[in-house]
Amino acid sequence: MHLLIEHLPLLGWLKGYQRETFVSDLMAGIIVAIMLIPQAMAYALLAGLPPEYGLYASILPLFIYSLFGSSRTLAVGPVAIASLMVSSSISSIAAQGSESYLNAAINLSLLVGVILLILRSLRLGAIVNFISHSVLSGFTSAAAIVIAVSQIKYLLGLDLPRASHVDKSLSDIFTHITESNTATLLLAVTAFFLLWYSKNRLCCQLQRAGMPEWLVQPICKAGPMFAVLFGSVAVWFFNLGQQYHVDTVGMIPQGLPTIQGIHIDLDLWQQLFVPALLIALIGFLESVSVGTALASKRKERIDPNKELVALGLANLGSAFSGTYPVAGGFGRSMVNHSAGAQTTIASLISATLVAITVAFFTPLFYYLPKAALGAIIIMAVLPLVDLKAFKNCWRFNKADALTLAATFILVLFAGVELGILAGITLSIVLLIYRSSQPHIAVVGRVKDTEHFRNINRHDVITEQSTLALRVDESLYFANTRFVEEFILKQCADKPEIRQVILICTAVNFIDASALETLEQLIHNLRDVGVTLHLSEVKGPVMDQLNSTPFVEQMGNGKIFFTTDEAMQELAGV
Amino acid sequence: MHLLIEHLPLLGWLKGYQRETFVSDLMAGIIVAIMLIPQAMAYALLAGLPPEYGLYASILPLFIYSLFGSSRTLAVGPVAIASLMVSSSISSIAAQGSESYLNAAINLSLLVGVILLILRSLRLGAIVNFISHSVLSGFTSAAAIVIAVSQIKYLLGLDLPRASHVDKSLSDIFTHITESNTATLLLAVTAFFLLWYSKNRLCCQLQRAGMPEWLVQPICKAGPMFAVLFGSVAVWFFNLGQQYHVDTVGMIPQGLPTIQGIHIDLDLWQQLFVPALLIALIGFLESVSVGTALASKRKERIDPNKELVALGLANLGSAFSGTYPVAGGFGRSMVNHSAGAQTTIASLISATLVAITVAFFTPLFYYLPKAALGAIIIMAVLPLVDLKAFKNCWRFNKADALTLAATFILVLFAGVELGILAGITLSIVLLIYRSSQPHIAVVGRVKDTEHFRNINRHDVITEQSTLALRVDESLYFANTRFVEEFILKQCADKPEIRQVILICTAVNFIDASALETLEQLIHNLRDVGVTLHLSEVKGPVMDQLNSTPFVEQMGNGKIFFTTDEAMQELAGV
Repeated sequence: MHLLIEHLPLLGWLKGYQRETFVSDLMAGIIVAIMLIPQAMAYALLAGLPPEYGLYASILPLFIYSLFGSSRTLAVGPVAIASLMVSSSISSIAAQGSESYLNAAINLSLLVGVILLILRSLRLGAIVNFISHSVLSGFTSAAAIVIAVSQIKYLLGLDLPRASHVDKSLSDIFTHITESNTATLLLAVTAFFLLWYSKNRLCCQLQRAGMPEWLVQPICKAGPMFAVLFGSVAVWFFNLGQQYHVDTVGMIPQGLPTIQGIHIDLDLWQQLFVPALLIALIGFLESVSVGTALASKRKERIDPNKELVALGLANLGSAFSGTYPVAGGFGRSMVNHSAGAQTTIASLISATLVAITVAFFTPLFYYLPKAALGAIIIMAVLPLVDLKAFKNCWRFNKADALTLAATFILVLFAGVELGILAGITLSIVLLIYRSSQPHIAVVGRVKDTEHFRNINRHDVITEQSTLALRVDESLYFANTRFVEEFILKQCADKPEIRQVILICTAVNFIDASALETLEQLIHNLRDVGVTLHLSEVKGPVMDQLNSTPFVEQMGNGKIFFTTDEAMQELAGV
Repeated sequence: MHLLIEHLPLLGWLKGYQRETFVSDLMAGIIVAIMLIPQAMAYALLAGLPPEYGLYASILPLFIYSLFGSSRTLAVGPVAIASLMVSSSISSIAAQGSESYLNAAINLSLLVGVILLILRSLRLGAIVNFISHSVLSGFTSAAAIVIAVSQIKYLLGLDLPRASHVDKSLSDIFTHITESNTATLLLAVTAFFLLWYSKNRLCCQLQRAGMPEWLVQPICKAGPMFAVLFGSVAVWFFNLGQQYHVDTVGMIPQGLPTIQGIHIDLDLWQQLFVPALLIALIGFLESVSVGTALASKRKERIDPNKELVALGLANLGSAFSGTYPVAGGFGRSMVNHSAGAQTTIASLISATLVAITVAFFTPLFYYLPKAALGAIIIMAVLPLVDLKAFKNCWRFNKADALTLAATFILVLFAGVELGILAGITLSIVLLIYRSSQPHIAVVGRVKDTEHFRNINRHDVITEQSTLALRVDESLYFANTRFVEEFILKQCADKPEIRQVILICTAVNFIDASALETLEQLIHNLRDVGVTLHLSEVKGPVMDQLNSTPFVEQMGNGKIFFTTDEAMQELAGV
C-alpha cells in the first residue's frame, strides 16, 4: 500500500478526503472543463489537426496524470506551445490533413512519452537545466507571437497555407487582406469582446449584483464558452456559413476515441527525434515550473521525478488515444488552482466532462466559427509575450540578454526548433566564453585582519617580491591559457617578483588541461627564478592533486592552509 | 620601421644578425630540408594528392611564415594530421586524382587562411581554448593510428581504395593480404631499418668514430633521405618497377609552382567550411603549442595573434601555389630547434633548397618506391600515439579520461571530423554536467579563528539555528535548481534553522536564471520563517546585484563582508 501511494500520489491525498474537498474539486473541475473544451479544439487546429483531436487529448492523458502526478493542481492537456511545435515539426514531413500527418502526430506523442520515461530511468531529468531562463523566456515570447500571428487568417476568414515563419505569415496576410471576409471579422471582434469582457469586467459586476461566489467563478471563466456559444448561434441563426462563407468547424465525429495500435516506423522516429526531445523537455520544464509555483503557494513541494513519469505516461495515453502530445498548461492550471482545486480529482472531473461532450454533444459544434477559436487562442497566448524580460536581463547580465534576444529572433524568423537549439548552444558558448577570461584579482592584506582583497577596490598592504592572486574561476581547458598568460605577464612586468601565491578560494575543480598547464607554468616560472605557491585549496581539489605527482613537481612551492599564513611566511606582511 | 618590425618579427631579429648566427641557421635549414623533401612528398600522398604538391606546399608558405611568424624555430609546411584531415574531408566530395579533388584542396587552403585571418581580426583566437587537452590528445593518438594504418597498403604493395575508417582499412588489407608484393615489402622493411638505425644508432657511432659534430647532425637526421635514396637505387638497379610491379612515384613535373588564380565556388565552400575550421584550429593549436614549448626553452615568448596572421598568410600562400593547407609540424620543428636554428632564416634556407629541388631534381624521384614514403610517414607519426595519457587522465579526472577515450574511439571508427566535434561537445557537456551538481559544504568555525571549513572534514563549531553554506560554484542556469533544492531540503530536514548564510567565496558570477531562482528562494524561505543572508560576495558579483532590486527583496536578509561577522551577529559563535 505504501508503495502504491509512493507511485500514485492521488491515493495518499484520498486519505482524509472529505465532502468539502470534493465540492471544491468538483467546482474546479467544471470550471476547467468549460475553459478546456473550446481551447482544446482551438489548439488542435493550431497543431494542424481536426478539432476533435484536441478533445481526445483531454480525456485519457488527464485520467493518467490524475493518478500519477505529484502536483495537486497542474492541469494537463493540449497546450499552445506544444501544439505549435507539433505543427512546425510535422508540416515538413507530411501534408496537413493527410493520414501520415496524423500518424506522425501520434508517433510524436509516443516518442515524447518514451523520452520522458527514459529520462526518468536514466536519472537524466536534470537535462532540462541546460535550458536557461533566458532561452525559455525568449522562446516563449516568440512562440506566443508566432501562434497569435498564425491565427490572424482565421479572424479574417482567409484560406492561407501554413507558413513556417512569422514574416512569411504576415506577408501572406497583407497580400490577401483585401479578400477578408467581413462576417468572419465581425464574429472575431465579438469573440474578442466577450473574452475580454468576461475576463476583466464580468466578475466585479456579478459580485456587485450580489450573485453567490460559487456561481460567479464559473461564469467569469466561461469567456471561451461564451465566445463559442455566441459564434455558433450567430452562424446558425444568420446562416453565415452558406450565405457569407464563414468557415466553421463542421462535422465532428461523435464518440470516444478508441484505444488503438500505432504504426511505428523507425525512419519517421529518426526525423521526429529532435522535435520530440524538445517538446518533451519544454513540456516538462513548463509543467514543473507551473507545478512548483502552485505548490509553493500551498507550502508544498512537487517531485520532478514523479512528474517525468506522470507526463511520460500521459503522453503514452495521448498516443494510444490516437492524438498528439500534451503537457501541463499555464493558464488552465492557474484557473484550476484559483477555482479551488484540492487534488487531481478536479482533473478527473474535467476529463469526464470532456468525455461526455465527445460522446454526445459534438454536433453542437457544427456551426462553431473557426474565427472564435482563433480569438480564444490569441487571448490565451498574448500574456506569454514578455518584452520587459529583455530589459531586466540586459541590466543584470548582457550574456543572458543576448541569448534571450537571439532565441526570440530565431524562433520568429528561422523556426521553433532551430531557435531553441541555437539559444541553448549560445547560452553554453557564452557561459564558457565568460569563464574563459576569468576575473583575476591581485590582492593584499586588509590592515590588521586576516582578509585579503583586490588591490584596486580596497586599501590593502602588499609586498614587492610576493604576488598574491585570486583567480575567480575553476581552472579548466577554456581558461587555463588565459591564467597562465596573466601570471607570466605579471612576472615579466615586475621582475622583482620572486613568489607567486595562487589563492584557490574560487577554484572548485581543476581538469587535466589545467593540471598540465600548471605543471608547465611551475616549470616556466622556475626558469625565471619565481616559485609558485597555492593557498586555500579546497578539499575536493586537494584530493584531486594528491592523486598525481603534482605536489612533488612544485619543488620549493608550498600549499598553504590560509593566505594569511602564506603571506606571513613568504612576505612577512 | 617600428611598425614594420611589429608586423615582421624577422626584421627585428636581423638587427645584430651575425656570421655565426647565419651558420647556425644555414645548418638547421639544410638539415630540415633533407628531412622535409621526402616527408613532403609522403604527406601529399597521404592527402590524396600527387607527391609534387607536398613540395609546392614547402616553398611559398615557408617564405611567408619566415617573414611574419613570431616563433624563431617553428617549421611550417605539410604536416601529417592536416594531410589526413584534407583527404578525409575531400574524399567524400570528389574522386582522388580528379581535377575537382585538387580544386577542393586549393579552396581548403584558401578557406583555412581566410578563417585564421578572420579569427585574428575578430580577436577570436581564444576559440582554440574550446579544444581541451583531452580532446587534442585523443584525437592526435587516433589520427596517428589512422595515418599509420592508411600506409600499410603501400608497404604491402596493395592497390586498395582509400577507406574512411580504420576498421574498413584493416579488413580490406586482411582480405587482400595474399596479393602482397614481396619486393615492395622488402623495400619497406629496409626503409624501416634505415629510418630506425639513423634515428637511434647512427649518431652515437659517428660521434664515437670522431666525425665533427656539424657533419654528424645532418647525417643523423637524413634517415628519410637514406630511405628514399636506397629505395630509388634499388628499384632502378633491379628494375623492380617493371619486373616486380613495385609502385613508384613516377614522373614528377619539373619546375616551380606557378602563382595562379583560384576557382571559387560558394557551394564548395559551404561543404568545406567545417573541415576548414577544424584544420585551421587544430593546425593553429599545434603550431602554437610547439612554438610555445620551443620558445620557452630559449626563455622567449611567441605571440598567438601574430601566429594567426603568419599561419593565415602561409595558407593563402599554399592556395596561390595551387596546393593544400600547411601548419607548424612537431617533428621538423624539434629538429630545426635542436639543429641550432636561431631565426626563421633557417626556414628560408629550407624553402630555397626545396625550390631548387623542384626546379631541377624531380626526375631523381622517378624510381622512388611509395613503400619508402609509407615507411617514412609511419615512423613520423608513431611517436604521436600516447596511450599512457588515458591512464594519467583517469586517475586525475574521470571526465577528461572519458572525453579522451570517446574522441579516440570516434576518430578511429567514425571519422576525423565527427570525432573532434563529438569530443569538443562531450567535454563541454561534461563540464556543465559537473558544475550542475556543485559541491556544497555546510561549514562551521575553525576554533579560535576567523576561518570556516566543511563540517565533514574539519572539527568546527556550529550553531543550531544558523546554517552556513559554501557553494563551490558560480550560480547559473545549469545548477541554480540544484542549489535551491539543497537549501530547501536542509531547511526541511532541520526545522530549527532560522538563518541561512550563503557564503559566496566561490561564486564568481550570477546569471539571470540564478537571480530569478534566488529571488524565488528568498520568498520560499520567508514562507517557512527562514531568512537568507549572503557573505563574502565578490566585487563584480556585488556590482551585478546592485544593478537590480535584489537587495531590497532580501528583506531582513543582509549581505556581510565576512562570514566571521555574519556568524557573530546571527549565531553568536
